Amino acid sequence: MGIIEETVTGIGRLDIEKMRLARSRQDRLIKPAGSLGRLEELSVLLAGIQRKAAPVIKDKVIITMAGDHGVTAEGVSLYPAVVTAQMVRSFLKGQAAINVLARTAGARVVVVDTGIASELTPQQGLISHKIGYGTRNMVKGPAMSREEASRAIATGIEVATSEKAKGMDIIGTGDMGIGNTTAAAAITAIMTGHPPDEVTGRGTGIDEVQRRHKITIISRALACNSPDRRDPLGVLAGVGGFEIAGLAGVILAAAASRTPVVIDGFISGAAALIAVGLAPEVKNFLIAGHVSAEPGHKITLQHLGLKPLLDLELRLGEGTGAVLAFFLVEAAARILSEMPTFEEAGISEKIASDGSPA
Amino acid sequence: MGIIEETVTGIGRLDIEKMRLARSRQDRLIKPAGSLGRLEELSVLLAGIQRKAAPVIKDKVIITMAGDHGVTAEGVSLYPAVVTAQMVRSFLKGQAAINVLARTAGARVVVVDTGIASELTPQQGLISHKIGYGTRNMVKGPAMSREEASRAIATGIEVATSEKAKGMDIIGTGDMGIGNTTAAAAITAIMTGHPPDEVTGRGTGIDEVQRRHKITIISRALACNSPDRRDPLGVLAGVGGFEIAGLAGVILAAAASRTPVVIDGFISGAAALIAVGLAPEVKNFLIAGHVSAEPGHKITLQHLGLKPLLDLELRLGEGTGAVLAFFLVEAAARILSEMPTFEEAGISEKIASDGSPA
Repeated sequence: MGIIEETVTGIGRLDIEKMRLARSRQDRLIKPAGSLGRLEELSVLLAGIQRKAAPVIKDKVIITMAGDHGVTAEGVSLYPAVVTAQMVRSFLKGQAAINVLARTAGARVVVVDTGIASELTPQQGLISHKIGYGTRNMVKGPAMSREEASRAIATGIEVATSEKAKGMDIIGTGDMGIGNTTAAAAITAIMTGHPPDEVTGRGTGIDEVQRRHKITIISRALACNSPDRRDPLGVLAGVGGFEIAGLAGVILAAAASRTPVVIDGFISGAAALIAVGLAPEVKNFLIAGHVSAEPGHKITLQHLGLKPLLDLELRLGEGTGAVLAFFLVEAAARILSEMPTFEEAGISEKIASDGSPA
Repeated sequence: MGIIEETVTGIGRLDIEKMRLARSRQDRLIKPAGSLGRLEELSVLLAGIQRKAAPVIKDKVIITMAGDHGVTAEGVSLYPAVVTAQMVRSFLKGQAAINVLARTAGARVVVVDTGIASELTPQQGLISHKIGYGTRNMVKGPAMSREEASRAIATGIEVATSEKAKGMDIIGTGDMGIGNTTAAAAITAIMTGHPPDEVTGRGTGIDEVQRRHKITIISRALACNSPDRRDPLGVLAGVGGFEIAGLAGVILAAAASRTPVVIDGFISGAAALIAVGLAPEVKNFLIAGHVSAEPGHKITLQHLGLKPLLDLELRLGEGTGAVLAFFLVEAAARILSEMPTFEEAGISEKIASDGSPA
């Protein structure tokens, strides 16, 4: 059995008993029951995922995977492909948005080269798992082979498993790859059944004429590869990306190791669609960090049955929407652990309808 | 000239030049322009408020004001009035939701007794500015005198000014007072012109029958006091609360000292309506932390022209929705200060339509 099958087989269910205990304590904390809204729901979900009535969110990790895309030859992005490597260097220097936000949130950023088109100098903080020097152009054939797609998924599983061994309590997904909104739109179209027009957005800031061109390219890629949603690995190979495949592996490994995984935006969402395609029970372990300004992301979240925590019109990727949501997830866990109940604090409870304490 | 008039006179405009500088730098940071959505807008607003092209959010303070309400005699809340004092004691012990969330956000909580109905032991962390032992029952006459309302506002100004002197970069408002959603609904009805039914919610968790009763009480209070929205001090005196008046003072002082002020939920929103009624330019200094589950809060935000940062179905108060938003405001400021521009980082910029670098 390969590492992917092994991971999928290892994915369990939410722990209903721990969720019941968390819900019951949440209802007795010194506040009106339910008054912390979605933070309360989140704390109960964390209990079910971590199998702890008092879930713990301390060691927070963003796994940002980078890869290049052959489809950039078709002029789908405003930025040259070389920006992927340049931005990864900025991640390693701690300069990018994801670094600033991770410092603010007290999270670590793990940067993985899954297939950048150029060679990066080996250095502290960079994990190299290069599957190739960018994918092939998906309008001319599959972006990668099935074997490459499998290896990229396995890479994600390996990285997540290694971080888990260091004590990671929560994962956020992040991506970097010029051209990857094109791959994500193609995946989203197939996996959700929506036409390319509905899931294709402005990416880094293209105009409507350029967006129409991008839709044409995606339609050609779909026609060329005829991907089938019942074969998620085939979808990845046909129109995916190395970093998207890697993130699908991260998500599978998160679920298998009972680690809550905060999904960032549109690219991470495409990875989640693949992961859920491979193992539907993965859904229970997902938290939607935000809904992005990319129109396809809303469709992804609806398809996954997820309600985003934030709506800040972000469209950057890197893991920025996930790391911003870490704060809310940590807050939810701490509420449950650090607040006393009415009884413990000696505070009067609700008045029953007959005027006596309820 | 009294302290209120002096504070109102001291409120200036946003610094347009600093906002232009911030916007221009934001557009050149190493990310597609606009891709951090509302965080970018927020960073520009902070620049205008603080008069700094690189705004700083370090010392974060929640000012939570507590007071009791005579109208609780009418059975408008599920909890006995004694809970106000009990919860304030839990704030001082660091046990309540606001304490847990403030620790998570790295913020200080300043607790002010503006009019709790019982005596609290003087202690570290409690600022006592008691205007009275709870307000009077607003269905039988004004909740307080105009002079008491003025003194409560002045108290808020004093507390905010004193925290500013300690280095505070941002204020969040918070409240505690059994019965205060009734006062807030009455204020909101008057200041926004909406009928009581539309601005009255479930508070700590009453059912629909109890909510109808609450609406009747609010209607009686409005009939008894005939408050006039052109006289915000009269509105406060008629149907307000000591803590709501105090928070209006905090908001005025924040604007006068060019400190961004994050408004929590429905009660803080009512205080903001009063502050904006007294000095319309206050609006520019407000940030809506969240939209609460109380239906009237959405109406308040619309009236103030504010778009909330979070929507988590919270309905607790204490400052919980404000402190959760602090993280986003701090993140917005740090993005602007800590990220380099494309030029500074030596990263390729956009490709122009002719294929050359833009």
